[in-house]
Amino acid sequence: MTGPGLPPGISVHPVPGLPEFAPGDDLAAAIARAAPWLADDDVVVVTSKAVSKVEGNLVRVEPGTDRETARQQAVDAETVRVVARRGPLRIVETRHGWVVAAAGIDASNVAADALVLLPEDADASARRLRDRLHELLGVTVAVVVSDTFGRPWRDGVTDVAIGAAGLPALVDHRGAVDQHGNRLETTQVAVVDELAAAGDLVKGKLGGIPVAVVRGLRFRSPEPDTGTRPLVRLGPGDLFPTGTRDLVGSRRTAATLAHRDGALSAVTEAFRTAVAALPEFPVVFRYGSEEGSEEGDGGDVVDVHLADPITPVTSLSLGAVVGAALVQLQADGWATRWEPAGTFGGASLAGRLWLGADAG
Amino acid sequence: MTGPGLPPGISVHPVPGLPEFAPGDDLAAAIARAAPWLADDDVVVVTSKAVSKVEGNLVRVEPGTDRETARQQAVDAETVRVVARRGPLRIVETRHGWVVAAAGIDASNVAADALVLLPEDADASARRLRDRLHELLGVTVAVVVSDTFGRPWRDGVTDVAIGAAGLPALVDHRGAVDQHGNRLETTQVAVVDELAAAGDLVKGKLGGIPVAVVRGLRFRSPEPDTGTRPLVRLGPGDLFPTGTRDLVGSRRTAATLAHRDGALSAVTEAFRTAVAALPEFPVVFRYGSEEGSEEGDGGDVVDVHLADPITPVTSLSLGAVVGAALVQLQADGWATRWEPAGTFGGASLAGRLWLGADAG
Repeated sequence: MTGPGLPPGISVHPVPGLPEFAPGDDLAAAIARAAPWLADDDVVVVTSKAVSKVEGNLVRVEPGTDRETARQQAVDAETVRVVARRGPLRIVETRHGWVVAAAGIDASNVAADALVLLPEDADASARRLRDRLHELLGVTVAVVVSDTFGRPWRDGVTDVAIGAAGLPALVDHRGAVDQHGNRLETTQVAVVDELAAAGDLVKGKLGGIPVAVVRGLRFRSPEPDTGTRPLVRLGPGDLFPTGTRDLVGSRRTAATLAHRDGALSAVTEAFRTAVAALPEFPVVFRYGSEEGSEEGDGGDVVDVHLADPITPVTSLSLGAVVGAALVQLQADGWATRWEPAGTFGGASLAGRLWLGADAG
Repeated sequence: MTGPGLPPGISVHPVPGLPEFAPGDDLAAAIARAAPWLADDDVVVVTSKAVSKVEGNLVRVEPGTDRETARQQAVDAETVRVVARRGPLRIVETRHGWVVAAAGIDASNVAADALVLLPEDADASARRLRDRLHELLGVTVAVVVSDTFGRPWRDGVTDVAIGAAGLPALVDHRGAVDQHGNRLETTQVAVVDELAAAGDLVKGKLGGIPVAVVRGLRFRSPEPDTGTRPLVRLGPGDLFPTGTRDLVGSRRTAATLAHRDGALSAVTEAFRTAVAALPEFPVVFRYGSEEGSEEGDGGDVVDVHLADPITPVTSLSLGAVVGAALVQLQADGWATRWEPAGTFGGASLAGRLWLGADAG
């Protein structure tokens, strides 16, 4: 019995034989030499690191300087906004509008005395590369500049596009109707990101193959060419403008906070965060669980004391810190209940915080 | 001049000719008929929707029921935790550990009287499909079950893996040394996600091609086969457990909050959120900007009044709400400053909230 044959699809090819790049090198000429087989409508996927190297977008690590310290300084310089932080790890919004760990500054695949920044304008880099390849080989290709990003909630990195030219970043199916008559509401496919991912399957993190070519994809060159700008989602459209564990910039680390375990340490951390967040409410408080407290439903009880005499002003300050801490605890998944103490006549006991099992 | 020829890479093929699937259908047999050319080490990328349909993982929309209402109810049932919310949109953690809009329940490419859930256990589905294809065709393939996910900070959806068999979800480069002698610290590549993305380039959201095959990738079957479980990053490793705009579950919508604009509406929203979050602090307050206030530095001033008499108890409650609101405002990017009123002798003015330009 014979069945259908192998249907035509797309193919993804590595481009081996490229040299180690340095500032001022002609990337397009090197690609043209290594891939003279490039054809119209091929998509050239280039690792951003190669682009940054030829464009000289490097930071030199001075002799005697700690590489990690230099990296943190470089991250500072590239950062518009810290989105989340845990210990030395910072997820930041870069000047380009990308949200990425360490501003995309990777310390691998570069000499030990240098760090590579993201390209200054990777869309422009992609356009230049596209134009030069047309000059050199007479072919009209599209270009994707790729970088390796992590993402929330999923372990493992994937390559995404941070620059593009000659193809649409998003393919829009909105308003189209499927074969069942359902109108597609929200489907815009980030095709350049899928191309970057496909390219990574034949490149290598170790092998120094910074370029791949995808052949066989059908697409239309957009006019005007907005590159990867349509991918940037910040401002009102962003549901995750801040990593919750790092709501407060001054909170240096949340590594000590064991989720779903350790009520007291969670409370400690939340109050520390709240105090740091609210310097306009100076409050000194003590808290600790009463021994032999009798909550029978598996929750923890933390008694909150105010060191200063109870007055309306100190109560307001204490309340501010408690409120901020409770919201932080809720965001971390704890069920909370606050029971104010019944009397305030000079007593230093301000209230009791009940911390329940995970709020799920 | 002849240069190097086209280097071998990988190829990605659609599998056309598959039928519309219904509960009880033999998916493996259909794939074997449509793709008799399958070979050892091919990766079969199957849209989760096809898997759910044959496994009967559908919700019936009763006649007369609104499709969107039925969908929201189905999302409720599949949700372990709401991670973020904006109006009807919910980003949730599913039973499987995936964080995805609407619990991955898509209303497209299915008959109008049904909704398709994610597969019950897509790793098990992948293993069964792999085993059955071995029985039917005598080939040892890997299987990826793909679904279409959005992601924070980037517009456009991409396909990712929610089930896998016969290949490692993550390829681990940690500890490896690049050609410059730098040790790679954190690089684990989510290869199955990149395969899902590559597969999507030849499938179609509209065309009813639910299966693609990737050929030419080198990989080793893991033992034991943990499927896509290594991709799940929740709990302590998760820096984004809660969408900040929706810190509080009872906050139904943040669509009215214009970021970096409209200080008063931001304050209104933050206080509404704080009040909802802290039912243990009953407080009635009024706020509004004094006319003719004289902050000269471009910030907005909101005076916060307490409707009840000022006592330690009401101050504590007010403080809790103010503190929670300030943290929320900070999370939304506002610079805040709280100036408590100087006197409390019966005065209803509790304090003044200064809201600065974006905190950057």
